[in-house]
Amino acid sequence: MRVTVAGIDVRDIRFPTSRELHGSDAMNPDPDYSAAYVVLRTEAGEGHGFCFTIGRGNEVCAAAIHAHAPLIVGREIDLDDLGEFSRRLTGDSQLRWLGPEKGASHMAVAALVNAAFDLAATVAGKPLWKLLSDYSPEQIVDLVDWRYLTDALTPAEALDLLKSRAAGRADREAQLLATGYPAYTTTPGWLGYTDDKLVRLAREAVADGFTQIKLKVGADLDADLRRMALARDAVGPDIRIAVDANQRWDVEQAIEWVERLAPYDPWWIEEPTSPDDILGHAAIRRAVAPVKVATGEHTHNRVMFKQLLQAGAVDMVQLDACRVGGVTENVAILLLAARFGVPVCPHAGGVGLCELVQHLSMFDYVAVSGSVENRVIEYVDHLHEHFADPVRIVDGHYVAPTAPGMSARMLPESLAAYSYPDGAAWRTGAADGFAPGDEVAR
Amino acid sequence: MRVTVAGIDVRDIRFPTSRELHGSDAMNPDPDYSAAYVVLRTEAGEGHGFCFTIGRGNEVCAAAIHAHAPLIVGREIDLDDLGEFSRRLTGDSQLRWLGPEKGASHMAVAALVNAAFDLAATVAGKPLWKLLSDYSPEQIVDLVDWRYLTDALTPAEALDLLKSRAAGRADREAQLLATGYPAYTTTPGWLGYTDDKLVRLAREAVADGFTQIKLKVGADLDADLRRMALARDAVGPDIRIAVDANQRWDVEQAIEWVERLAPYDPWWIEEPTSPDDILGHAAIRRAVAPVKVATGEHTHNRVMFKQLLQAGAVDMVQLDACRVGGVTENVAILLLAARFGVPVCPHAGGVGLCELVQHLSMFDYVAVSGSVENRVIEYVDHLHEHFADPVRIVDGHYVAPTAPGMSARMLPESLAAYSYPDGAAWRTGAADGFAPGDEVAR
Repeated sequence: MRVTVAGIDVRDIRFPTSRELHGSDAMNPDPDYSAAYVVLRTEAGEGHGFCFTIGRGNEVCAAAIHAHAPLIVGREIDLDDLGEFSRRLTGDSQLRWLGPEKGASHMAVAALVNAAFDLAATVAGKPLWKLLSDYSPEQIVDLVDWRYLTDALTPAEALDLLKSRAAGRADREAQLLATGYPAYTTTPGWLGYTDDKLVRLAREAVADGFTQIKLKVGADLDADLRRMALARDAVGPDIRIAVDANQRWDVEQAIEWVERLAPYDPWWIEEPTSPDDILGHAAIRRAVAPVKVATGEHTHNRVMFKQLLQAGAVDMVQLDACRVGGVTENVAILLLAARFGVPVCPHAGGVGLCELVQHLSMFDYVAVSGSVENRVIEYVDHLHEHFADPVRIVDGHYVAPTAPGMSARMLPESLAAYSYPDGAAWRTGAADGFAPGDEVAR
Repeated sequence: MRVTVAGIDVRDIRFPTSRELHGSDAMNPDPDYSAAYVVLRTEAGEGHGFCFTIGRGNEVCAAAIHAHAPLIVGREIDLDDLGEFSRRLTGDSQLRWLGPEKGASHMAVAALVNAAFDLAATVAGKPLWKLLSDYSPEQIVDLVDWRYLTDALTPAEALDLLKSRAAGRADREAQLLATGYPAYTTTPGWLGYTDDKLVRLAREAVADGFTQIKLKVGADLDADLRRMALARDAVGPDIRIAVDANQRWDVEQAIEWVERLAPYDPWWIEEPTSPDDILGHAAIRRAVAPVKVATGEHTHNRVMFKQLLQAGAVDMVQLDACRVGGVTENVAILLLAARFGVPVCPHAGGVGLCELVQHLSMFDYVAVSGSVENRVIEYVDHLHEHFADPVRIVDGHYVAPTAPGMSARMLPESLAAYSYPDGAAWRTGAADGFAPGDEVAR
């Protein structure tokens, strides 16, 4: 089905989360969770999408979305061939210079591609995970931009992989609808929280049915050892505790720090060093096994994920819904991970990331990897109230969404209140002497 | 010396180069060479800097420069400690999310850091290459953000390296002033040029004293073989001919294509595949030797250069003056290249890139690598007339600039005429029916 884009609306949406130290970690002490938000307007309805930032610079992503308007407005989108739409955006020779396929311009592509998929799923009357799962293997392969991938995976090999998974699709879909998709929670582990709050939230997580939690580490070794001991004591030996350094360390430092934490049995070390350092992650993984290495929320495109897998640098692939170029590039990453047999455990949290990534993992289970073994979607209990179709967590699992679309739509009143800098939430903050990112004592 | 930044002025400057197919290659058929240009205003004078784009999206880089204003305006810069200024810009936790250290936000950092060095060199009354060459080894090491580098090079090792080069500094400086720095020219080789123009320009290059030229390849193998044969015939066996695929190929395709071109003795293959594909470049290099592999103009930061060197993926490091975070990060890259014994052959061309990178190579020769063996700076004869201190080429060499600063300042009348979209050059174009990037038949 072909639709014509009448126009795009771009909004700079920011939540003053730094006031409560939600989301504080070793590299990001005071984020204001934000979204550069876009609406594609067509005769068939609207598609909503966004990319996620942590405050300052959200306006740069908004400008980057605007920069793509000449490729979109007044032109057609084939909702059955969104690979073409995606390649149109990433293939513009002049805009490509800003990346290629990285940074603010690529995050803008993510917002636009996700919006197109939100529209396609809405028009189809299906949640996105179901729309993708109902695609033929050929349709799925056609979503991917295969440039730079064929030394690791060819379209023909991807087709074979998808066909080999076709038999169990219906059973897995029924299983998904019955039990949901496993989640883990980062809620207890923010660096800005007190020890008491950490212990209380860790116990609550176990009581709520989670079998994995995550702690932020990397700012202070003694504090990390103390917090890790408290958390392990609170949850017992059978709950997995992942730790996340948010890129804080050099390679040698990462190895030494993880060795110190090892007595508390960390499940994985996440972002131990620069997200660009493929060889560094591989060296760390060799040194810290059996502790697993996870990364991906800042891995900027499929070429980087390809190399992380080729180099044996990761045990878990943590794709992000809007760091890479949206659904199409994430399909490529799911296929690569399946080819290498590495589980995908998406990054979420922030604002709206849980809503988006659940669709990717559920599609992965039904149609690509066919497994939930060692696979969990991150969950953080922030800001879901601003969405029209918020995630639902039951007994430590994401409930499969059934409403049409990508769960990407914020409520109109939230869009109004959190528009930056003129929304009510920011006008009030200014009156109180608040400014984004600088008002909270560490 | 500490100065206070009274304000920054940001300009969107674009040249309608696509009208003449200057700069056309296999991935960039119709660039409009552009600069997101910034002026730092202080009580000690102005610093000018810019990052380079090829048209659409230049406004995104301008927005990204603006986004850093709160870190700069009304605050001090220590012109003797620009490492601090650089780390202040790259270290902002919220802006860092747009990268980290990549894409439009990092190009904005480049513009700002280069502007600060332009100011520092102007205040010191020295060309930048001389300012840096007169720094002590300790001062040079302090410019670098060492995070993520220490598994390849520590500050102490860098200090030893620089001290080992100290003895010959004066002799090399005298040599540089006497003979300049070797250049090669890309002028003959743009894909949009006719065969006749290619042959004529190749012969002119040799007559002008160049010992290396470069041809764009990668769009059509038969055409490449024909053009390579014509070029080899025109320049004879002793002139080096580099070829540049501008990221066009997958890994296997690159290997096959270069093997077909091998009978014409290409000196290096540049950007054979994705600039992010470290492992791919390493595989290509192993396969195509003795043809050399060069890359770097899209390599987005020091962590990627570190890995290209660790993996043995490149024979030449082609740093860019304003893709990575400006002078400070390029000092890191020069040190890494020297540590691995790999020559640096900077990317230039575009608008103003020749003016900037000459300072980096000349500093490299005097104080870091101490050698010009197999080292050449790219030269393209476009748009120099818009600069107050344009490069000068004599007998195939860059003449060492002697005017204070980084040669970064465009003429006021050029800034006015090429401001986008309101400058005279664009108003005329619009009246003629021209629009950027879409008016020229391929």
